[in-house]
Amino acid sequence: MTSPENGKAEHAITMRDVAKAAGVSVATVSVVLNNKPGARIGDDARRRVQEVVAELGYRPNVLAKTLANGTSRFIGLVADAIATTPFAGQIIHGAQDEAWKNGYVLLVANTDGNKAAEDEAIAMMLEHQVHGILYSTWYHREISVPPSLHKTTTVLVDCFASGSGLPAVVPDETQGGRTATEGLLAAGHRRIAFINTTTPSPAQSGRLAGYRSALEDAGIAYDDSLVFPALPEQEGGYASTASILESKATAVFCHNDRVAMGLYDGLREHGLRIPEDIAVMGFDNQDVIAAHLRPPLSTVALPHYELGAAGVRMLLGIDSSSNTVATLVACPPVQRQSV
Amino acid sequence: MTSPENGKAEHAITMRDVAKAAGVSVATVSVVLNNKPGARIGDDARRRVQEVVAELGYRPNVLAKTLANGTSRFIGLVADAIATTPFAGQIIHGAQDEAWKNGYVLLVANTDGNKAAEDEAIAMMLEHQVHGILYSTWYHREISVPPSLHKTTTVLVDCFASGSGLPAVVPDETQGGRTATEGLLAAGHRRIAFINTTTPSPAQSGRLAGYRSALEDAGIAYDDSLVFPALPEQEGGYASTASILESKATAVFCHNDRVAMGLYDGLREHGLRIPEDIAVMGFDNQDVIAAHLRPPLSTVALPHYELGAAGVRMLLGIDSSSNTVATLVACPPVQRQSV
Repeated sequence: MTSPENGKAEHAITMRDVAKAAGVSVATVSVVLNNKPGARIGDDARRRVQEVVAELGYRPNVLAKTLANGTSRFIGLVADAIATTPFAGQIIHGAQDEAWKNGYVLLVANTDGNKAAEDEAIAMMLEHQVHGILYSTWYHREISVPPSLHKTTTVLVDCFASGSGLPAVVPDETQGGRTATEGLLAAGHRRIAFINTTTPSPAQSGRLAGYRSALEDAGIAYDDSLVFPALPEQEGGYASTASILESKATAVFCHNDRVAMGLYDGLREHGLRIPEDIAVMGFDNQDVIAAHLRPPLSTVALPHYELGAAGVRMLLGIDSSSNTVATLVACPPVQRQSV
Repeated sequence: MTSPENGKAEHAITMRDVAKAAGVSVATVSVVLNNKPGARIGDDARRRVQEVVAELGYRPNVLAKTLANGTSRFIGLVADAIATTPFAGQIIHGAQDEAWKNGYVLLVANTDGNKAAEDEAIAMMLEHQVHGILYSTWYHREISVPPSLHKTTTVLVDCFASGSGLPAVVPDETQGGRTATEGLLAAGHRRIAFINTTTPSPAQSGRLAGYRSALEDAGIAYDDSLVFPALPEQEGGYASTASILESKATAVFCHNDRVAMGLYDGLREHGLRIPEDIAVMGFDNQDVIAAHLRPPLSTVALPHYELGAAGVRMLLGIDSSSNTVATLVACPPVQRQSV
């Protein structure tokens, strides 16, 4: 048993090594590498430095550069729960890809909703002179902004804070609810139930608004006896089975894929076939579940990857953003075999 | 529409501000803050500096400290797929908690198994003078080590590389397979089928070895007609239903929870009740699935959080490690209602 030290002694190439090999001063190397304006360096010396840099494989010390410039190539991402859901993982993935594409590195901190961990993560990021911070939650909701976020450029991802002046990027819940309902209407259904979550949230109100608007456009009167509240998990979907059967609905829009999975179990216990006897539409396109139910679940995808990527683009000023209205990202339909 | 600049102008406290307020030189402040050995600073000046630091809320510039010390308070984590599985998220979570506990910050890079992205991530981490790198995969397997990992202290997490000399921490698949089988034996079963994965891997061989060893300890002869190969997903479990029924097994150990979920569907179609007619044991304790099947699934947990935490402890020399044999982390049983 030893402690893990694996040939760490290898000598790193320094600016001093480059200066020596090129026969110039360290200051000259620094000026050439940093493209400092107004510095007069002969073409010859400049070329020699560049050749030696290539030859020795010298990589400029990014930390020294950060100190010189006052801001780093880091973007911070503070997430409340990357560990307990596959969702936030996709936000990280999208943010990382977009950050790398633009020459930035993502510093990720998971806070588990713990206030002290969050304060520490933000302080750490400020100490590292991040270019800015993405503050993200694993489900779409309104937040109160940690005051220290105002010390840097901040974009809220999958959350928003009215009146904070911070730009935000969130999923378009209303369009998503409309898209889900339209998928059922397009299959010929007219009596469509909606199992909605009991948790007050933009998803609860937005998906309901989308459901209503799709029905209205199809000339179907909204009937609130077809809307059933349930816990947004498998257990909630299963528990809704009796109400769904009594409602005589021929199709069900479920608040999320977990609810749909529970409803599948309930419908099966009554010997009902999906979609022949009753059609089921999910929401989220949740990994590990949606594509693997029997039959595979038709659903609407939460655009988590795109939320992360859009947040970075807004932070870097590549995409424009608003300080008063959250930017909406569309929830696209995913057609499988349950409708 | 504006670009997001939110009061970023706030002046950060610098070492210069501290020096001015304390009536000493910047060099003196630096010596006091960095506890440089051999420097002679009067007790009075030292105390004044410390008081001013507390009063102004000055935070030493960690990047400057890194430059001075030659190594940062960063630990790198290179992961091949944090986005497509909830598993790797738990590795990150465990690594982050342990890193923070010891005053380190985790730099996370997701590579999606892309070689170029991986090389770039490792180069970026080396540039930032990380204290070391955790290299992790989302499922337990043997890897070939990217050569640049030998330039720093590296610990392999959920993977290993024979003969590389790199320490590794992996789940104890054999113990896990034994624990799963013992759970079925303890419920009185003697004819226990095993649906194993078709993918050659330490999980395939280890869980089988554990299954055999538990049977042997119970005085039951191993019968390879009770072992069925299947794709390690819901579809594989479902497709195994007929073979399981023909085998007359009273209990089934499934390679993972997704296989168990598919088998549930197949058994239900034959009107069989779990566990009254046939007991089902999973593996992984996969989030979103295991606790939410009907009935909730008894399983064995993959210790991803603990793998990440143990990796950091080995990297920091808190836990000892071996350069020749992977360190095993136990897979604990999770009892629910399917056995």
